[in-house]
Parts: sequence; structure tokens; C-alpha cells
Amino acid sequence: MIHLKKPHLMKNDLMNKVKRRVAYAIRITQTAAIMAFSMIALSVSEANTAAAKPNVAHFTLDNGLEVVVIPDHRAPVVTHMVWYRVGAADEKPGKSGIAHFLEHLMFKGTNKIGPGEFSKIIARNGGQDNAFTNQDVTAYFQRVAKDRLPLVMEMEADRMANLKLAEKDVLTERDVILEERRSRVDNDPSSILQEQMLATLYLNHPYGIPTIGWAHEIKNLSRADALEHYKRYYGPNNAILVVAGDITPEEVRKLAEKTYGKVKRVPELKTRQRPQEPEPHAARRIVLKDPRAAQPTMQRYYLAPSYTSAQPGEAEALDLLMRVLAASTTSRIYKEVVVNKKKASSAGGWYSGTALDNGRLAVYAVSSGGEAEIAAAEQAIDEVIEDLKTHGITQKELDRAREAAIANRIYAEDSQSALARRYGWALTTGQTIKDVEEWPERLAKVTTEDIVKVARKYLVKKRSVTGILLPEKQIREASVAR
Amino acid sequence: MIHLKKPHLMKNDLMNKVKRRVAYAIRITQTAAIMAFSMIALSVSEANTAAAKPNVAHFTLDNGLEVVVIPDHRAPVVTHMVWYRVGAADEKPGKSGIAHFLEHLMFKGTNKIGPGEFSKIIARNGGQDNAFTNQDVTAYFQRVAKDRLPLVMEMEADRMANLKLAEKDVLTERDVILEERRSRVDNDPSSILQEQMLATLYLNHPYGIPTIGWAHEIKNLSRADALEHYKRYYGPNNAILVVAGDITPEEVRKLAEKTYGKVKRVPELKTRQRPQEPEPHAARRIVLKDPRAAQPTMQRYYLAPSYTSAQPGEAEALDLLMRVLAASTTSRIYKEVVVNKKKASSAGGWYSGTALDNGRLAVYAVSSGGEAEIAAAEQAIDEVIEDLKTHGITQKELDRAREAAIANRIYAEDSQSALARRYGWALTTGQTIKDVEEWPERLAKVTTEDIVKVARKYLVKKRSVTGILLPEKQIREASVAR
Repeated sequence: MIHLKKPHLMKNDLMNKVKRRVAYAIRITQTAAIMAFSMIALSVSEANTAAAKPNVAHFTLDNGLEVVVIPDHRAPVVTHMVWYRVGAADEKPGKSGIAHFLEHLMFKGTNKIGPGEFSKIIARNGGQDNAFTNQDVTAYFQRVAKDRLPLVMEMEADRMANLKLAEKDVLTERDVILEERRSRVDNDPSSILQEQMLATLYLNHPYGIPTIGWAHEIKNLSRADALEHYKRYYGPNNAILVVAGDITPEEVRKLAEKTYGKVKRVPELKTRQRPQEPEPHAARRIVLKDPRAAQPTMQRYYLAPSYTSAQPGEAEALDLLMRVLAASTTSRIYKEVVVNKKKASSAGGWYSGTALDNGRLAVYAVSSGGEAEIAAAEQAIDEVIEDLKTHGITQKELDRAREAAIANRIYAEDSQSALARRYGWALTTGQTIKDVEEWPERLAKVTTEDIVKVARKYLVKKRSVTGILLPEKQIREASVAR
Repeated sequence: MIHLKKPHLMKNDLMNKVKRRVAYAIRITQTAAIMAFSMIALSVSEANTAAAKPNVAHFTLDNGLEVVVIPDHRAPVVTHMVWYRVGAADEKPGKSGIAHFLEHLMFKGTNKIGPGEFSKIIARNGGQDNAFTNQDVTAYFQRVAKDRLPLVMEMEADRMANLKLAEKDVLTERDVILEERRSRVDNDPSSILQEQMLATLYLNHPYGIPTIGWAHEIKNLSRADALEHYKRYYGPNNAILVVAGDITPEEVRKLAEKTYGKVKRVPELKTRQRPQEPEPHAARRIVLKDPRAAQPTMQRYYLAPSYTSAQPGEAEALDLLMRVLAASTTSRIYKEVVVNKKKASSAGGWYSGTALDNGRLAVYAVSSGGEAEIAAAEQAIDEVIEDLKTHGITQKELDRAREAAIANRIYAEDSQSALARRYGWALTTGQTIKDVEEWPERLAKVTTEDIVKVARKYLVKKRSVTGILLPEKQIREASVAR
């Protein structure tokens, strides 16, 4: 069904959630595979740098539409994506969820396409389609046989300008979203905790407001709100077209001019300036007790720069830092907390840096014990972090992390859509094609000193929020929940 | 000097701070006095109800200016206040501090009054003037001899419409405010903690943004921002004039028509709708370690309704609840935590309910010990709260709290400016004259059951943020700061 496969809101956050959930199973397997791959890749690490630069074309149509073409002739298919430079963090106060709501409504049709027909037409043509919204972007994509690309581009260009919304459909869809919120967030204590943690981490920046929206605000979103958002943000001069697949830049340009080229600009938008975070002063902590929670878990987010907002060299160092510290079963946290000290059944972390304004460092632990055990796991993680900040890392650890990062990157290029997403994410969050292409070279420059420096600068408690999820039963035993 | 006595920003918050700071000295003395007074008043408690209704006049000028006149002929002086229905919570995102900034700039002059002359003229006429900004209101007031009221009204009406701002003065004043922020907030760990606690308590509502503004946003406020705010919000139809003193309503009306009556309306403003809080899910906790902190302190805020947003009967019950629980040396928390268990050198709490959208319940403790001792004090407070929620309060406790509340109210009426502020606060935060006048009668209806009900509903951990302030030295002893 269309709806089932549709809106991937909060991609990053969902990814994190998925990471958490599958950490103990798939993740280890996958990372093990990557690590194995990276061992093979060790000898070709210089070649990697070159291999990581697909022959990408980049141009802009007269009406401002930026176009990225990534030729990939391995199969006669194409991935077609339109990325709008607008996400939940661009919403007006009190209108949380409108970006995601409009994403849903974009499937309601135009003068040419009947309500709900968009995805059906793609499916009838043997393709797949989907869309997602996060804090910074709203994106629509299809994967089709090469010869169906003109159809897809015509349809996507059509709904960029000619969306038709019936009041009835809007109200129905709002109920769908409220139900989505209930099932994805309100019925899932780990999602509730994550939402609370982000709202607590960001004291001023709208990244603290959930992408799906607060329930009480979703309930008041109207057709007029959706159309206002649409008319303001949906236009060729606020979009990026990414086409990856068995096609040449010239073919894409011709098709783009014939379709998107006819869409009028929206009034020029100001630079996306969101309220920024104040200097962090104090560690924050959230305890959520929920009978539905299966196991005590601890998560922590630290405010960090994003790939876009980081000082030169910092994002690369953060990326490698978190690999050494937390990214796999060979990471320091896993080895120390899970294997040696046996304080947690699972533990790890990551850097999420794909964002216009702020990134985050995350660490987590899951315990099969109770409140005291999860506290011990947290303490063990803190000790690993302090040790790294005090004594640094070895060259061997750095090299291994770098190989893994580069291997991971090459590995991702096997997927046409992953390749397309790489450029789409980068460009909609303020990076350039050059930033993407130079990434492996930038990783190559990171030293062990750089790692310690960013660890000391960003893995700092006062920059963080810690969330503790406890099955409620266990809490009642303690007289005072701290 | 003018600047020294000027901007009382964050009145409520400052009041809370003052309460904290002087809790152990002045407060107890004052409360003891009030209590003594209330003992005397016990026999006249029915008369209180009538006594609490001054003969207030309330009318509106043709241009929308609401006028409240509170005759008070005890001395030939008047208190003159203009309250604007705009505060920090009405600011645009990213422009925090603009309401307070404009309050400062209102002393810069008009065509008739030279820069910085306003307060000097008041002083030369034997008067005092001041102004303050909080989340919901911006207010300007003067206290002068009765015969100087026409002058004051002319001057205040003049700057309602004719403010003149030189770029140079704006920039100088911005530096003054940045310095004010540094000295009042950034150099004071308890203020930093309070700021962080509010930012953490409010996940969505702008009450989480400090009234003075975040430093990084104050730095970018411009003359244009100030004028935009001024032109939008400063007009007779968005203001309330309160005059208390030795004057009749008719005299005030004539003067008001001659002065404010000539000021043009601003374009009609929408109802003040700020983003509201989502359903609270989880207790939050902040630890601030600061070498400047003298003693470990614990504070907690619970989200509660305000006088304006509460269900009928709830605000009255919250008011009395917090008196029984925490308001003085006879409160349960003080007696149990400080006197009996000796877990804190000071402890208490209050309800702050004067707000358009949300109020807060607060409890606190100060310890002369270390981290463990403040944790024990917190636990002792929690036990007192749990006991109250479980076993309720006695009729005697309720009666005593009610007498204290009414005595307090009458006591405040000795101060002309307190009387004027009572009506100003009420009307700018959405209450009516009737609400103010009926307050004692409403208090009279509260039962012990009502108290337990609101305690169980609002003194709930998941609605709260707890802030712990620790002198840094003591922290270093613990390997992991929780």
C-alpha cells in the first residue's frame, strides 16, 4: 500500500532509532561486513579517494533549479529525486508538522493526476516512490526504468506547481498523521524519550521541535497552512533535482528544461536563518518511566557542529572520533563496557552531522538489569570517554577508523539511491559538490591530535542531555526517582 | 542615577530570585509579620472580603485605551502606570530581548523630550519612575505628587507615539543591555541555572526564552527591530492605563482624553497566541557546577496553570496548596526538612500564577553540606510532597493558609503601587477586574479536597525540571557527575 511505504519523516532520527533497535543484530553483522571489506580495501586506500568521485555533473536551469546528475550505467534504471530546501526547522512557531503534513498532501494530485494516483501511476510503470521530511529538507523520489524518466519528471514538475487540495482530503490526511504520530511516537517510549531529549537539548533552536509536529499543533493545521507553506517554499529556485542512473547529463538537462524548466520561480527566499543555540551551561537529564519499556536504556546527545557548520577539519575529526569511540564491536565503548566490564548488553554511539545548523554526538547503552545497572553502564561509558580525552587514541585506531569510513562510503556507492541521497543531503544542508567529493581527502588529513581536540571540545557534559528509559515497575521500588 | 533604578526585567523571575536570596532573612521576618497580622485579622476575616474591593473605576477611551482608576486618598500622590500587552513571549523567533531592549530605548526621548531627559524631568518634579519587562507585559510607571499627573500623562502619551531613536543611542544602549546580562545572569550561577531550567521546562512555549534575551541574539538586535516592535505593539488599543491615588475617575478620564486620547491606534493585533506546551512526559534534571556557587542548592519547577489559564477553582487551590506546603517557616517543607530532619539550611517554595499562558510551582532547598546533603534535602522534600498527596491536609492548615493569603492581600493594599500593579498585572495577563475582586471569595471556597486534587494533578515529576547548583570543587571529588 502506498501509505505504508510513504513518509519517512525524520530520516536521521529514524536512522538513529533503527540503529538503536537493530544495534545488537543487523548492525554488528553489517559493520563486521564493512570491517571485512575495509580490510580488503586497506591496500587500495589511495585508489579509494579517486573511486569516491563519481563523474557528477552539476548545473542550474534559468528558473533557478539546481540539477545534479550522477551517471551510473550498471543497470537501465534511474533514481529521480527532488529535494526542497525546507524542513521542519523552517516552520512558523505554533505550526509544527506543517512541512511533513504537506509532504503527505503532495500525493493528493493536481489537475492532471487524480487524488492518490501519483504513487499508483509510478507503481503501474514498475517503479517505486517515496518521500520524507526532516528538520532541513523535504524530498520526493522515484526509482524507475530509464525510459520512464520523462513521465516521472513531468509528474514531479506538475506537482511542484499545480497541487490541488480538497478540504476533505486535507482533514482525512491530518487524521492519518495524528495516527502516525500515535503509533510511531506516543506508543513507543524510546521515541517519546528521544523527542523529549531533542526538545531539552535544543534550548533555542527549532531542531528541538519534532518533525512530525506536537500533537496539539498538528490538530490545528489547516489547508490554508499547507498551501501557504507550499506556495512559499515549493518552486524550482528552492529545489534541487538529483538524477542518478543510466543517463547522461545532457539527456537530463533536456528533459529538465522541458518539464521543470516551465515552472515559475517562487518569490526569492531569505537565507535560512533559524534561532541559534546559546552557549551551553549545564548538563541536562531526563528520566522516562514507562511500563512499555522493555529494558533500561541510557542515551546521551552532545551538541556538536554539523558538516556544514563545523570549523575546517572538525567534522572529519568528529566522524572518526565516534568510529573509534563507539561505532562498532571493535569500538572502545563496546569493548570496554559490553565485553570487558559486562556493564551493558549493548552500547555504542555515532556522529550525526548532516544538518544545516547543528550536529549531534550520541552514545547509548542497554542493560538487561535495572536502574542501578544502567547507571553503572553509563558510568563505564563516561570512563571510556574521559580516558580517551585524557590519553588520546593510537595511530592504529585512527587508521582503522579511517579505512572503515572510506570503505563504508565506497560500499554505499553500490546503491544508486544512496549515491543520489549523498548529493541531495549535502546540497540541501548547505554543502557543495566539492565538499562531498573531497571528503575522503579531508578524512586523510585527520591526525590523532585532531581527534583528542574535538573530543575535549565537544564530548563535554554541559553540552549534553542524557535520557534514561526505565521500565516503570522497577522504579516504584525506589522511593525517590532521581 | 537613572540607569541604576531602571529596568526591572523579569519581574516574576527576579521576585523568585529575591525570594530565594532573602528567604532566610527578610522573608521569614516578613512572613512572621504577615502571620501575626493574620492572627489579628482572624476575627475580621469576613470583613476582609469587602475590604479587598477598592472602589475601582474601569472604562475605555474611543481609541481603545483601557483605563483603571483606583482612588486612594491617604496622601496627595498618584501612581501612574502604562502597561502594554506585549512581553518577551511575543517576540519573533531569533529576536529574543527586543521587548526589554525597547523598554530601555523608551527613555531615549521624543521631539519634545531630549535623549535621557524623561527620568530627569520626573525627578526634578519630585517623582520616581521606572519600567519593567517580563514574558507577558512591558510597563512604565511613575509616582508623583497629584498636581504633576498632567505632566506625566502628557509625557507618557508622547512617547507612546513619538519615540525618536538615533542609531548611535541604540548601539550604546545595546551595550548597556549586554553588560546588564553579563552582570545579572552570566556572572551569577543561580541566574544561569534558572535560565537553563526555564529553557528546559518549556519545550515549546516561548516562556523558555529569557526575557533579557540570549546574548548572541541581543548582539544582533537593531534600531529597525526596535522600531518594528514599537510600531506594532505600542498604541492605545494595546495598552492599559492604571492610575492609583488621590484622584477621581472623572479627573483621570479628562486628563486621559486630553493626552492619550490623541494617540492613534495601532493596526489591530491578533489574540496573543503563543505555541503551547505539549503534554509533559518525563522529569528533567539539570546540574550546574560553578566555582562561584556558594552552597549547593536544589530547585524544582513544575508546569502548572496560571490564574488566567486555570480551570475554575484550580488557581485558588494551587495558591493555598503552596502556602501550606512551602510558603513560610510554618510550612510543611520548612518544618520537616529544615527543622525536624535538618536536611537543609533553608527550604520552601511558591506558586507563580501571574501569566497569560502557564504558571509554575516551585520548591527549593539550600544545604550547607555537599552534593550528598543536597540530594538528601531533595529526597526529604519529595517525601513531604508525597505525604501531602497521599494523606491530604487538615482543615486547620487550610484555614491558616487562607487567612495568610487574605492578610497578605490586605497588607499589600497599604502600598499604592502594589494596588496599581495588582490590576495592571491582572488585566495585561488576561484576567478581569471581576477576577481580581472576587479572589478572596474564591479562596473562601477552596476545600481540603481541592488542595489534594491539584497537588496530585500538578506536583508530578514528569511535569517538572529540577536544577542542582553545585560549587565546582565539590564535584571534582566524584568521578561521574550524575
